[in-house]
Amino acid sequence: MRAVVYDGAGDASVVHVRDEPRPVPVAGQVRVRVRASALNRADVLQRAGRYPPPAGAPQHIPGLEFAGEIDLLGCNESPWRVGDRVLGLADGGAHAEYLCVPWSHCAAIPAALTFIEAAAVPEAFITAHDALVTQGGLGEGSRAIVTACGSGVGTAGVQLARALRAVAFGTSRTAAKLERARALGLDAGVTIGDDPAALSAAVRDWSGGTGADVAMDLLGGAYAGACLQAMAPRGRVIVVGLLAGAELPLSLGLLLSRRLTIRGTVLRSRSVTEKANAVAAFVRDVVPLFEAGKVKPVVHSVRPFAEIRAAHAAMEAGEPFGKLVLAW
Amino acid sequence: MRAVVYDGAGDASVVHVRDEPRPVPVAGQVRVRVRASALNRADVLQRAGRYPPPAGAPQHIPGLEFAGEIDLLGCNESPWRVGDRVLGLADGGAHAEYLCVPWSHCAAIPAALTFIEAAAVPEAFITAHDALVTQGGLGEGSRAIVTACGSGVGTAGVQLARALRAVAFGTSRTAAKLERARALGLDAGVTIGDDPAALSAAVRDWSGGTGADVAMDLLGGAYAGACLQAMAPRGRVIVVGLLAGAELPLSLGLLLSRRLTIRGTVLRSRSVTEKANAVAAFVRDVVPLFEAGKVKPVVHSVRPFAEIRAAHAAMEAGEPFGKLVLAW
Repeated sequence: MRAVVYDGAGDASVVHVRDEPRPVPVAGQVRVRVRASALNRADVLQRAGRYPPPAGAPQHIPGLEFAGEIDLLGCNESPWRVGDRVLGLADGGAHAEYLCVPWSHCAAIPAALTFIEAAAVPEAFITAHDALVTQGGLGEGSRAIVTACGSGVGTAGVQLARALRAVAFGTSRTAAKLERARALGLDAGVTIGDDPAALSAAVRDWSGGTGADVAMDLLGGAYAGACLQAMAPRGRVIVVGLLAGAELPLSLGLLLSRRLTIRGTVLRSRSVTEKANAVAAFVRDVVPLFEAGKVKPVVHSVRPFAEIRAAHAAMEAGEPFGKLVLAW
Repeated sequence: MRAVVYDGAGDASVVHVRDEPRPVPVAGQVRVRVRASALNRADVLQRAGRYPPPAGAPQHIPGLEFAGEIDLLGCNESPWRVGDRVLGLADGGAHAEYLCVPWSHCAAIPAALTFIEAAAVPEAFITAHDALVTQGGLGEGSRAIVTACGSGVGTAGVQLARALRAVAFGTSRTAAKLERARALGLDAGVTIGDDPAALSAAVRDWSGGTGADVAMDLLGGAYAGACLQAMAPRGRVIVVGLLAGAELPLSLGLLLSRRLTIRGTVLRSRSVTEKANAVAAFVRDVVPLFEAGKVKPVVHSVRPFAEIRAAHAAMEAGEPFGKLVLAW
């Protein structure tokens, strides 16, 4: 089969597409014929040598999500049949024509979605739903902050907030992305360059001084601190990425006086059972929103896997609004 | 009635006992004839001018908890009758012979406890139960950290952990207090002077490298950071005090890689309903433990209110193991 591999660590020139052995499913797994996948920040960090794949994950083929068809069953307990259209999460290895994953990490592709569209769904919507709803307690009437609201996860978070009758406030580096996020349901937002502190004041204005109830922060560093400053009493800041920095001078005085929570979360290193739970929550809560047309995949671009280096370059340039999809 | 008042802010010399008008209950309240109360760190900070009472709370009479008898009903909806023995939480004003509080902030005193013993219960056990169990998710088999385990809240936390079949690791500044905490059910502990980082290594050893599931941190500052370092994946650090500092250089990298939570909490500033919920959870979960003899009040000393200045001095000297009770 064809697969993306990294020859060492470095810039996009270490990325190649070459022939690799087709994987064989073990107990508990299914094999998926991957039709499309998408590029994630973690793939780029792994390529640069800054995010080693967790133990047990495919080490040399990247790719964290997929859309395709069930190709081979490694077990009897699976509800899947060969040919079923599925999307899902992978520990790695999804940038290949075939991929083995636990059957519980697959979800049926909503009928209206193509493989291309479905490939833009898993990481973005499962991460956003898990962070905002399962962990952050987002619900009807909540005020949510979504930093980097033009990213794949951000565009999913903005849509989920609107679909759940919450209101979302977003940040982006460009007004153009904020404008596009508004079309997805963003209530208001602010462009932020190198001064994340502006976020707090803007959210105070937006909320009539109350602050926000939950934040999904993709950036970390001073952004996480600005989210905390912008919280209403009992607010929850869920940090899902650290692009802007891994250190934060935390005011415990603020944390106590407003009774705030800050939590870090990642999907990739979770146990098989925990990932299955996140997928099941997505199937229960989010798939019906796709079927009702209340949320939709946001595809920035579609490239053949042969152009994987261009996808890496686009992500590193910060260009995308939504997902960079790759297809065989 | 007699009451403790602070004449301005300063050292213990500003504390006086003098005659004050007896308060009158309004709708939703009961009046309690206070038989005993206890001194809290917040009373001492308020005296020093470092912790102004929240808006709506009694401004010039301190005291955050009480044991006594229902003296007068300000409403019909209350389940209480005049003469009922109750303990409970106050926004302030409990260092007086009479106190008006929402009826829902009272709980029946377990039959075996005297007023003196009951006065050592509310802040310690409601705070520890709310932090460790309600917010921290402490349960059977959990590993808990309790910093300052010889304090009122600490001794309650250690006992609650044992009663719930969890194991607790404590810190104290003295080996003598650790030894006394062991008699209450502390599994292990470490004396910590000015190097909180020792906590993390000690907890790693204690837990066979796994780390702890939940921490109740009364100290803040570097102690909160040491608790985070000592956590197992998905651990929760609940910060309930800031004696050691209000700032923490937070590693978001650690927060994400271990999926940790840090939360600040206080009881005093909560709404009437939220406090009623905390008291109700205490009645449901902790009162049966008192009745079964699985937890007990820890009274360091009992003084008449006329010696309130000596109680302040004892707290500031860091002497107590358990609660400093004051009685009329």
